[in-house]
Amino acid sequence: MVDYSPALMTDMYEYTMLDACMKDGTANRKCVFEVFTRHLPAGRRYGVLAGTGRILDALERFHLDDEDLRFLADRKVVSPQTIKWLENFRFSGSIKGYREGEMFFPNSPVLQIEGTFGECTLLETLVLSILNYDSAVASAASRMVTAAKDRPCMDMGGRRTNEWAAVAAARASVVGGFQGTANLLASQLYGLKAIGTAAHCFTLVHDSEKNAFESQIAALGKNTTLLVDTYNIEQAVQTAVEVAGPELGGVRIDSGDLAALAQRVRNQLDALGATNTRITVTNDLDEYAIAALQTAPVDSYGVGTMLVTGSGAPTCAMVYKLTEREGADGAMAPVMKKSKDKATVPGRKLAYRSYEYGLADAEHVVSGSEDKLASFQPKDEWKDLLVPYVDHGQIDAQWQGHDAIMRAHDYRAKALAELPITAQSLMKGDPVISTEVSVL
Amino acid sequence: MVDYSPALMTDMYEYTMLDACMKDGTANRKCVFEVFTRHLPAGRRYGVLAGTGRILDALERFHLDDEDLRFLADRKVVSPQTIKWLENFRFSGSIKGYREGEMFFPNSPVLQIEGTFGECTLLETLVLSILNYDSAVASAASRMVTAAKDRPCMDMGGRRTNEWAAVAAARASVVGGFQGTANLLASQLYGLKAIGTAAHCFTLVHDSEKNAFESQIAALGKNTTLLVDTYNIEQAVQTAVEVAGPELGGVRIDSGDLAALAQRVRNQLDALGATNTRITVTNDLDEYAIAALQTAPVDSYGVGTMLVTGSGAPTCAMVYKLTEREGADGAMAPVMKKSKDKATVPGRKLAYRSYEYGLADAEHVVSGSEDKLASFQPKDEWKDLLVPYVDHGQIDAQWQGHDAIMRAHDYRAKALAELPITAQSLMKGDPVISTEVSVL
Repeated sequence: MVDYSPALMTDMYEYTMLDACMKDGTANRKCVFEVFTRHLPAGRRYGVLAGTGRILDALERFHLDDEDLRFLADRKVVSPQTIKWLENFRFSGSIKGYREGEMFFPNSPVLQIEGTFGECTLLETLVLSILNYDSAVASAASRMVTAAKDRPCMDMGGRRTNEWAAVAAARASVVGGFQGTANLLASQLYGLKAIGTAAHCFTLVHDSEKNAFESQIAALGKNTTLLVDTYNIEQAVQTAVEVAGPELGGVRIDSGDLAALAQRVRNQLDALGATNTRITVTNDLDEYAIAALQTAPVDSYGVGTMLVTGSGAPTCAMVYKLTEREGADGAMAPVMKKSKDKATVPGRKLAYRSYEYGLADAEHVVSGSEDKLASFQPKDEWKDLLVPYVDHGQIDAQWQGHDAIMRAHDYRAKALAELPITAQSLMKGDPVISTEVSVL
Repeated sequence: MVDYSPALMTDMYEYTMLDACMKDGTANRKCVFEVFTRHLPAGRRYGVLAGTGRILDALERFHLDDEDLRFLADRKVVSPQTIKWLENFRFSGSIKGYREGEMFFPNSPVLQIEGTFGECTLLETLVLSILNYDSAVASAASRMVTAAKDRPCMDMGGRRTNEWAAVAAARASVVGGFQGTANLLASQLYGLKAIGTAAHCFTLVHDSEKNAFESQIAALGKNTTLLVDTYNIEQAVQTAVEVAGPELGGVRIDSGDLAALAQRVRNQLDALGATNTRITVTNDLDEYAIAALQTAPVDSYGVGTMLVTGSGAPTCAMVYKLTEREGADGAMAPVMKKSKDKATVPGRKLAYRSYEYGLADAEHVVSGSEDKLASFQPKDEWKDLLVPYVDHGQIDAQWQGHDAIMRAHDYRAKALAELPITAQSLMKGDPVISTEVSVL
């Protein structure tokens, strides 16, 4: 099993800023930080938020042990005063945000972190790492699942991304609509359905393909999926049904013209009486390849590289920005940076999605003084997009673990169905609804 | 600190194949597996290998604890016989491969794993995850470093990739020629130089930019780097020098037209007497943006998104293939799959690079029977590309830890300088040398 703290999975400047603010007193100022992206990847219609549950897991693990503190002290990253503060560090602030599986758009405030400057700053890098990667994978997964229609998509991408990212990708792919993963650690940690077939080396290590198939069926039963493209596919399918009989669970094709091969293999299986034997295809699939296979007799898709690398968009460009903070007078004041092309909208935000005839027609991001926000009345049919995750340090456990992932999986399908159908198109274009930012 | 085993960071089928082969006896067959890529990312001239040292670290950590074994048993991933074998699992095979920092090309056998089928199979997913991601980052880093010429490049990308991938990316970026990283855990684990400036929120949480600069200098000294684009850059530079004096270490610009702004800021700093104050630029830099800044008075580059996502190529498409195995007669026999477009070259490989006038002109991959390989005589000027990493389970520790990373860092520069200079061009094209595969 795994045991670690994410406390140092962060940019050094989070700690040096904390230290400077400890010295001048601003570390204790109340703050509101906001996570959002300025734009979706080019041509994408929507994004799917994922990773929030992992942030909550990370908060629980977040502590500095003696070795970490010694490292920070020896390297003079922070001063002894800050070391002392860090010894008992525990996030005591509050977090709201979009649900996992919720759609997001440019300027959607997908996460809001409220607390002291010191404690919120320490979370910046970690929060962004998690949301940027997980949401990139979930967003790609969602497009693939749409292209696959009712056929299940399975994550087989672990080998094409960092070994820990693979675990996060498996989880995010399920949030994004996938049905299972090849990754065992993801299955162990999150209770996800683990799936698998066999590799070419399994056939090659045996003296014949027949021996290999017999061995796999002896170990895993007739419902297993046999890999049939190590040598000659037609011969392999023949052998597979000879060995397993018509009850053979499935075959996998991993090379060549997948549509044409699936058609040939389907006809061959049917002729052999194996009419219920499923066909799984793999081989650098992405949402476009899956869409192109719609008319082919394929039963499920194993997706690798393009899933775990976000299908051309391996990150979401999410940023973590201070939008409001306590001033010297103790009053909360909105703040904004004015950097060219990167200016921020000041103030804490409310976020709603409005609907017409049951279809979303806009994202409403509302900012203003705390007084005005408190008395703001959204329209009846608006959906409040912000749910509470952490209340003064208390994590709401309903957003963690297996059940939360499966609820997010279901929620994504529902939320996507409520968007204009253009969202389900693979045609490049603008975000399918616009984000209206207003200041009260 | 971190403590974990990577034993379940793998696709389930590695364990189910092991189990089937335990039952039929082939798990004990001696095997040779090979890692290679069939192609470089489109237009790339070379790749830079990284991650091998992390594979050795992972081998040391690789064990299954009671919880892992119970998981595999409860889920019926493997049978009780295999659980027993896994209880004491320790890789007892041998590994050779390219050095970290070495250039690789299509079909370069960057890693060779020899051992029983069972033990080699369990490593497949993990080995590929590490090499595919780390080499993607190192390959991108190397192009950026070339574009930056003598100016240092620093990794600031952790927030744009998975939080663990961030640590691997920091390490791989240094193998690829970077000088340091913002990532604290990478600094702690690998002794890498940690660097950092400040974020916009640091300026915003203070009552004025001047207060923020004073605070940072009080905490970190005048040699620190101040972020000057939160409000108005010209005003910020004025304030920065007022506060720190001409000894100010540096300023960072994170938005706008970086070349034009660097020029203005340089002139302003010089006019204020701060002639030694360095200018760092950041903001979605990639190798092309860095090349475009060659004539601008920039002193260092902070690179984020495009580094940790491989600058358009977030994985290397490396595969792990069985090339030779013991047969029923106990003799080693080359094997190959014949899948369309994915056939493999059978047999264990030797690998050399040949030179003419001190410049590499080809990669030579030599295969054949063990007898013929044993008596093969490379030409005098050929470089043997395979170094021994693990000998019958014994890891050669010289390839692990900080010193190994810095040697790889130096080695990359040397190996790149020995390639035709076209390799250093950002123009898209074919691999700069070709790989000649021959069978003895």
